[in-house]
Amino acid sequence: MKTIKQENPLIHCMTNMVVTNFTANGLLAIGASPVMAYSKEETADMASAADGLLLNIGTPSEAVIESMIIAGRAANAQGTPVILDPVGAGATPFRNHIIRKILDEVNVALIRGNAGEIAAILGEVGTVKGVDAQIKTDPIQLAIKAAKQLNCVIVVTGATDVISDGMRTVTVKNGHPWLTRVVGTGCLLGGVICAYSAVKSESLIDAATEALVFYGVAAERAFTKTQTQGIASFQIQFINELSQLTEDEAALFKQVEEIELEEKEK
Amino acid sequence: MKTIKQENPLIHCMTNMVVTNFTANGLLAIGASPVMAYSKEETADMASAADGLLLNIGTPSEAVIESMIIAGRAANAQGTPVILDPVGAGATPFRNHIIRKILDEVNVALIRGNAGEIAAILGEVGTVKGVDAQIKTDPIQLAIKAAKQLNCVIVVTGATDVISDGMRTVTVKNGHPWLTRVVGTGCLLGGVICAYSAVKSESLIDAATEALVFYGVAAERAFTKTQTQGIASFQIQFINELSQLTEDEAALFKQVEEIELEEKEK
Amino acid sequence: MKTIKQENPLIHCMTNMVVTNFTANGLLAIGASPVMAYSKEETADMASAADGLLLNIGTPSEAVIESMIIAGRAANAQGTPVILDPVGAGATPFRNHIIRKILDEVNVALIRGNAGEIAAILGEVGTVKGVDAQIKTDPIQLAIKAAKQLNCVIVVTGATDVISDGMRTVTVKNGHPWLTRVVGTGCLLGGVICAYSAVKSESLIDAATEALVFYGVAAERAFTKTQTQGIASFQIQFINELSQLTEDEAALFKQVEEIELEEKEK
Repeated sequence: MKTIKQENPLIHCMTNMVVTNFTANGLLAIGASPVMAYSKEETADMASAADGLLLNIGTPSEAVIESMIIAGRAANAQGTPVILDPVGAGATPFRNHIIRKILDEVNVALIRGNAGEIAAILGEVGTVKGVDAQIKTDPIQLAIKAAKQLNCVIVVTGATDVISDGMRTVTVKNGHPWLTRVVGTGCLLGGVICAYSAVKSESLIDAATEALVFYGVAAERAFTKTQTQGIASFQIQFINELSQLTEDEAALFKQVEEIELEEKEK
Repeated sequence: MKTIKQENPLIHCMTNMVVTNFTANGLLAIGASPVMAYSKEETADMASAADGLLLNIGTPSEAVIESMIIAGRAANAQGTPVILDPVGAGATPFRNHIIRKILDEVNVALIRGNAGEIAAILGEVGTVKGVDAQIKTDPIQLAIKAAKQLNCVIVVTGATDVISDGMRTVTVKNGHPWLTRVVGTGCLLGGVICAYSAVKSESLIDAATEALVFYGVAAERAFTKTQTQGIASFQIQFINELSQLTEDEAALFKQVEEIELEEKEK
Repeated sequence: MKTIKQENPLIHCMTNMVVTNFTANGLLAIGASPVMAYSKEETADMASAADGLLLNIGTPSEAVIESMIIAGRAANAQGTPVILDPVGAGATPFRNHIIRKILDEVNVALIRGNAGEIAAILGEVGTVKGVDAQIKTDPIQLAIKAAKQLNCVIVVTGATDVISDGMRTVTVKNGHPWLTRVVGTGCLLGGVICAYSAVKSESLIDAATEALVFYGVAAERAFTKTQTQGIASFQIQFINELSQLTEDEAALFKQVEEIELEEKEK
């Protein structure tokens, strides 16, 4: 089994300006090689050289979206997985427009979002407050529906994470609520899923599942070691854990379930 | 009394690229919901949805200033408080031009700056070194004068912070000198004042005073717990404290004075 | 002997969006005053006021490169040292083009890069993976050749750092491998060398040597104090050490050699 720490996949991150440093440090911690490049003059070259491409629209601009599409096509031409993180989907019409444009022009392999963002992409949510939408749809049904409609793997993150390609659906219960108290943990997770997708490309569902287990177990350990200290100490320890945890160790603590969907067949 | 941690105000931050992550984590720590959006295609929508708008010109560009003005007008239309942090006022003609433009086109509720920056806005300072201007004007007189001239609440931060609307003036002595040794603590403070202004909008002077007390007490506690360790440990502990401190606890340690200004009347 | 902590040089950083906060905090820690400004409307003013100018092309765009050249010329006009950090040289044709343009239009005093980047500038490297090129050229020969060809001081960083102006060559062995596990340590080092160059401008070779010793000793101490904790704890302690270490203390642990190059004369 190839691991991230052995393979050091080059991950081309086109992410938002709030989380660049945290994403880069987190990817370096798990053993990936992050590179950031945003200009249309070079994104095709960088994406072509990369093992995975992350498109995160957290602070979107017309210029960067144009670059993302150029990079996405270059990645598609190489068969390199493209991961989309639709931050703030539903928060503004501009974000909805951008997501539509990327999905129209790039072959996205996997989308990672919270339930509100995934629902917004399907046109199923009314109002979104900032980038932290709340929604009541069952995340399992949401993931399956989105996967079928968007024709890619969907990861809906939350207290329980759901991964689906429309046929097969898996849940992961690892993680810790304090991940929601540190800025960029969702965004970094998109990058980590991208690294796993690059190295374990036989099955994106398995790749995403392993990524979520690894990330979640690292968070659990970080909380155990720092709980009385506070959220910034948790963040530091979380990066420590990402660098020290092995995939074998993480697997010992996995809380993964395959979902049997009789209903689906009816 | 409504608190930030109960109300979770959505703060639309248009801030500089050096402090985005620190600002977002600090706002999340106090219980606010930060969102960053910079493109003119969406800033009006985001500002309209927000409970407060922060305009920080630390790394200005023509494009972002245009977006800030669009956002500022949208916030004005909703009655949402707009906080201006004029980073580096006086350092370059471009920054002076930008500040003038924002003040001309947006109804700014409160300006937070150091004495050098506030003096520069009034045209009262000669040379500024980088973004850390030093000035000898009495900060109380400066705050009162600026508040009258600019017709908004002025917060002059320093060893003693001064808050004035031109009529009423308050000083806050909480805080710790090491705040000046961590990048972005002034910028984050602008965000924190914005969150307090959003939740306690009856009186912006009281809102800013509470924000400064809370922020200062958190810094005092952070230093007490980490003093022999160093400034990066102080920074981490400061975020820990921002998340753990309650407004009631902070109030126990407040060092606040109402300034009686007989001179003013003469 | 003037020290950074006494002189507080103003360092105008035009750096990449991944490392802005880390660079600013690191420079503040050593006693410098960092300022970031990117817009062509103000970079000449800021560079003219600064004691040193750092140009780091880690996330390049046409607009920022234009601003860098304006700033570089303004710094040249004042005799202010300009330090170039050619991040990702060789990774894309666009980066090679940019570096060539800067070197054509600005008088660069010192270039800091890893061996792959310096070799790429000389046209001596084939493929580069992301921004972490590997190359087998002897770094001493590489530094000497680059210094002669590019007519400036070259710092090739690696397990052993090499500094050369083509005539005189020095190696520094201080440092710790974990510096490569934290994002932006190379970029911050460029800023630190810029601060030393600003304060100790009589000899840029000596300035860079002192900077590398100081930086390396701080890393050694950070590792000693945090080794069982992990890379994020190392990063925090590294900033702590940068703020607490004095230049005199660092000098006690220096591992510096002057290289005698009989071969050069033959």
